[in-house]
Amino acid sequence: MHSKFNKIKSLLLELKKIESISSLLSWDQETLMPENGGDIRAKEIAYLSSLAHQKHVSNEFKRELEKFVNINNGEFVTNEFTNNEKRFLNRVWIDFHYENSLPQEFVETFSELVSKSQMKWSKAKKQNDFSIFKPFLTKIVDMKKKEADYYGYSTNRYDALLEQFEPGITTEKLDIFFGELRPRLIKLIKKIKNSSVKIEKINGKFDEDKQWKFGLKIIEEMGFDLKSGRQDKSMHPFTISFHPSDVRLTTRIQEDNFLTSLFASIHEAGHGIYEQGLLQVNFGGPYGQACSYGIHESQSRLWENQIGRSKIFWSKYLPILKEYFPQLESYNLDKFYKAINVVEPSLNRVEADEVTYSLHIMLRYEIEKMLINEGLQVEELPRIWNEKMKEYFDIIPGSDANGVLQDVHWSMGAIGYFPSYAMGNFYSAQFFKKANEEIIDFDKKIMEGDLLPIKRWLNENIHKYGRKYLPNELIKKVVGNKMSVKPFIEYLENKYGKIYQL
Amino acid sequence: MHSKFNKIKSLLLELKKIESISSLLSWDQETLMPENGGDIRAKEIAYLSSLAHQKHVSNEFKRELEKFVNINNGEFVTNEFTNNEKRFLNRVWIDFHYENSLPQEFVETFSELVSKSQMKWSKAKKQNDFSIFKPFLTKIVDMKKKEADYYGYSTNRYDALLEQFEPGITTEKLDIFFGELRPRLIKLIKKIKNSSVKIEKINGKFDEDKQWKFGLKIIEEMGFDLKSGRQDKSMHPFTISFHPSDVRLTTRIQEDNFLTSLFASIHEAGHGIYEQGLLQVNFGGPYGQACSYGIHESQSRLWENQIGRSKIFWSKYLPILKEYFPQLESYNLDKFYKAINVVEPSLNRVEADEVTYSLHIMLRYEIEKMLINEGLQVEELPRIWNEKMKEYFDIIPGSDANGVLQDVHWSMGAIGYFPSYAMGNFYSAQFFKKANEEIIDFDKKIMEGDLLPIKRWLNENIHKYGRKYLPNELIKKVVGNKMSVKPFIEYLENKYGKIYQL
Repeated sequence: MHSKFNKIKSLLLELKKIESISSLLSWDQETLMPENGGDIRAKEIAYLSSLAHQKHVSNEFKRELEKFVNINNGEFVTNEFTNNEKRFLNRVWIDFHYENSLPQEFVETFSELVSKSQMKWSKAKKQNDFSIFKPFLTKIVDMKKKEADYYGYSTNRYDALLEQFEPGITTEKLDIFFGELRPRLIKLIKKIKNSSVKIEKINGKFDEDKQWKFGLKIIEEMGFDLKSGRQDKSMHPFTISFHPSDVRLTTRIQEDNFLTSLFASIHEAGHGIYEQGLLQVNFGGPYGQACSYGIHESQSRLWENQIGRSKIFWSKYLPILKEYFPQLESYNLDKFYKAINVVEPSLNRVEADEVTYSLHIMLRYEIEKMLINEGLQVEELPRIWNEKMKEYFDIIPGSDANGVLQDVHWSMGAIGYFPSYAMGNFYSAQFFKKANEEIIDFDKKIMEGDLLPIKRWLNENIHKYGRKYLPNELIKKVVGNKMSVKPFIEYLENKYGKIYQL
Repeated sequence: MHSKFNKIKSLLLELKKIESISSLLSWDQETLMPENGGDIRAKEIAYLSSLAHQKHVSNEFKRELEKFVNINNGEFVTNEFTNNEKRFLNRVWIDFHYENSLPQEFVETFSELVSKSQMKWSKAKKQNDFSIFKPFLTKIVDMKKKEADYYGYSTNRYDALLEQFEPGITTEKLDIFFGELRPRLIKLIKKIKNSSVKIEKINGKFDEDKQWKFGLKIIEEMGFDLKSGRQDKSMHPFTISFHPSDVRLTTRIQEDNFLTSLFASIHEAGHGIYEQGLLQVNFGGPYGQACSYGIHESQSRLWENQIGRSKIFWSKYLPILKEYFPQLESYNLDKFYKAINVVEPSLNRVEADEVTYSLHIMLRYEIEKMLINEGLQVEELPRIWNEKMKEYFDIIPGSDANGVLQDVHWSMGAIGYFPSYAMGNFYSAQFFKKANEEIIDFDKKIMEGDLLPIKRWLNENIHKYGRKYLPNELIKKVVGNKMSVKPFIEYLENKYGKIYQL
C-alpha cells in the first residue's frame, strides 16, 4: 500500500502494542497470577485501556485520519483511492468511530468493572451464589445498553452489540438462520432420542500429565507452532494473541474427563493457528486482525468437530491414544468414534455435542435480546435461564453454577458474543465442504495424520486476509455462495444419521 | 503527608504502573515466552520505557515538581517543608533528574539494545561464543559512558553509574572497603587451604520435583507469601515485583546440584520478602521502593547465608530434608553443615561460597572501572577476565561460558551493579548481628523453625521504610553505627575458623 498511509499505520501500531501488552496482563491474570495480585492488575489493565482510548481519539490521530476520510461519517475525501485502500480506510475508520463514540470516563469505568466482575463471577460460580455476581452483571448490562446508544443503531440496541463481534449480522438475520435451523435440529434430536442405537460414554480416570502430552502432540500435528506460542492451564479455556509470533492457548485438564480437555486443546489450537496465520507484516493494521469472532470460531470448530470428531481422524490417532492410555484397549475405531459423538441434552454449553450446541446459543441469544432490548432484569436471569433450559432441553440445572453462571462472557462484558459461536458453526461447515473439494486426497491425508495441507489451505484462503473482507464477503470469496445454515444442517443430519442409524 | 503532594503522587503512580507492567513483560520473557516472541516483546518493552520517560519529563510533571523544588538543582523552593517532606521531595527530584538527563532517543535505543542483548548473551553463553555478544556489549559500554556523562559526576565516570545502584557509594569508598577486606580474606582462604580439615561435597542426583517442593516449603516458612507471589523457573534466578501483592521469584533446578537451586530459592525469597514488605500505601512513591540494590542484597544474603547456611537452621530442617531425600540418611548435622559450607576457589560467582564470593565481586569491580574509566576495550574482556581469575583464584576458566559470559548483568546494561552485592554482604552481617541482639531467643527460634520473628524484625526495621533513608542512614538507624566491613569479616573468620579448625 502507498506510503501516504505510513503515518496512520505507525499510529495504529502504537495502539496495537498497547493492546498486545494488555493481553499479556489478562493472560497472566487468568493463568498464573497470585490470588492477591488482582487489584493492581485490574487498575493496570484499566490504565492501558484508557491510554489506548486516549491515543485512538487524540487530535494527532484525528488529524491524520481526516486526510483520508470525513471522521464523522467515514466518507472518503477523494474518489481516487483504490478499492483496497478504501477497504483499509473503512476498517480504520470504523474502529476509530467506535472508540470515539465512547467517553473516556465510560471506557475507564467499564474496563475496571469487567476486570473486577470476572473475579466476582469466578467466585460466584465456585460458591454457586448468583447474588455475588448480580450487582456487577447489573452494572455491566446497564453500561452495555449505554454503549449501544453511544454507537447508534437503526432497528434495535442489541444489533449494535452484535455488530462488534460479527459485522453485518443482525437480529433480523439471526432470526432467519435460527428459524431455519431450529425445527430441523429439534427433529434430529427427537429421532436420535428414539433411536435404538445407545452409545456408552467413555468413563474412568486419565492421568493428567499424559492428557497434557497427548494434547500437545495433536496440536503440534495440526500445525500450531510451539516456537510461536504455548499452552497453559486455566479455569476456562481461551486463546489470546500478542502477535503472530506469540499466541497463547489455555486448556483445562480434568482427570475424569479427558475428552473435554482434549477437544478444548484442539478447539483453542484452531483459534491459535488462525492468529499465527495472520501476516506479521500487517501487524497493527486491520489486515493483521482476524475477520470476525464468527470466522474465528469457524476455525476452532472446524478443527474440533469436522476434523477432531471424525472417524478418519481417529483411524490415525486412536492407536496412538491407546499407547498413552492402555485402558482404551477395548475400543475399536467404531466404538470410539461413537463414544466421542454421543448426542444428549446437557447443562453445559462448552461440553455440549455438535447437535445440541446450537440450542445453547439460541437460549443465550434470546436472553441477551431480552436483557438489552426488552428490559429483562438481571435478578430474573436464574429463573428465565432455567425456564428456557426446561423448554429447550427438558432439563433444569440443579445449581446456578451449572446454569446461568456457567459462562465467563457476560462478566467480560461480552454481550452479543454468543451468536458468533453459532455463526462459526455455520461457516465451518461451509469452509469444510470447500476444503474437502479443493484439497487432493483429503480423507486419505487425514487418515494418514497429514494435517498440514488443511492448515495451509486455511492459511491461504482465510487467515492471510485478516480483516480485509467482511464475513459475508469472505464466505462468498472462499465458497462461492453466501452465508447459509444448510451445509451445517446437512453435515449434522448426514453424520448423525449414520451414527444413530436414523 | 500533606495533600499538597496528591497531584505529584498521582503522576508518580502512573509512572509506577507503567514500570510494573513492563516488569511483567520482562518476567514473562525470562520464564515462559516462546522462542519467536522476542522481537515484538523487545519493541513493547522499549515502548513502555519510552512512554514512562516521556511522562516523567513531561511539562505536566515539571510544572508540578516546580511547585516544590528548583528542577535544575533540586533546591527546595521554601524552607517550610518538614524533614520528612524534604526527604520525599529529594527522592522524587533525584529520579526526575536522572530521567531528565537522558534524551528520549537515548532511552529508546538503550531499552531496545538491552532487550536484544539479553537474548544474544543467552545465545553466546549457550554456544560458548563471546563474539556473538561482543558487538552488543560494546554498544552497551559506549552508551553507559554516555549515560554517566549525561548524569554528571565529580571524580570519575564510574561513580555516576555506582550511584544508580548504591547511592552514596563511590570508587573511593569501595577502594577503602575492599582494601580492608582483601588481605584478611586472602589470609583466611590461605589458612583454609592449608587446613587439615577436608570436606566432601554432596553429590548424586536429586529428583527435580522434590527439590521444587522442598524449596517452596522453606520459602513459605521464611514468610514469603504465595498468595502475593509465586516461584517459577528461569535460566538465571531473579526476583521481580509488580506490587507488594504480586512478587515473582525464579529459581533454577538442576538434578545434579540441589544445593544451588535450594539456596537460590532462599536467596530470591529474601528479596521477595523485602518487596512484599514494602507498604502498599506507599506504592508509586519513593517510600514504596526498596532503599538500594545493596540493601536489597543484604536481605537475600542474610536469609541465604547467615540463616540458610547456619547449623541451627539445619538442626530443624535436615530431618525434613531427609524425608524428601532419603539418600542423605548418612549425613548427621555436623557433616551436612560442613558440606554446605565448603570453601574453595571456583569459576562461578553465583555458586561461590561466602568466603570467596567477595573476590568475584572485586574482580568485576576492577574490570568495570577499567571499562568505564580507563578505556579497556570489550574485545580484551575474555583475556583480562582470565588473567584476573588466575591472579585471584589461581584458576583459569576453560571456557568463556564459565568465565566472562557467566553473568547476565552487563547484557542488561547493569554496569555498576556488582559492587552492591559486596555491600549487601557487609550490610547483612551488620543487620544479622543486630537482629541477633534484639530478637529474644534468636538461636532457639531458628532451631525450632520459627522464622517469622526474623521476617517481622526485617519488616519493621528495614522494609517498611522503603527509600525514606539512604543506605548509610538506614544502617546508622538500625545498627547505630556506620557502614563497616568489620562485622562481615569477623563473621567469616569466626564461622570458618570453627569449620576448618583454624
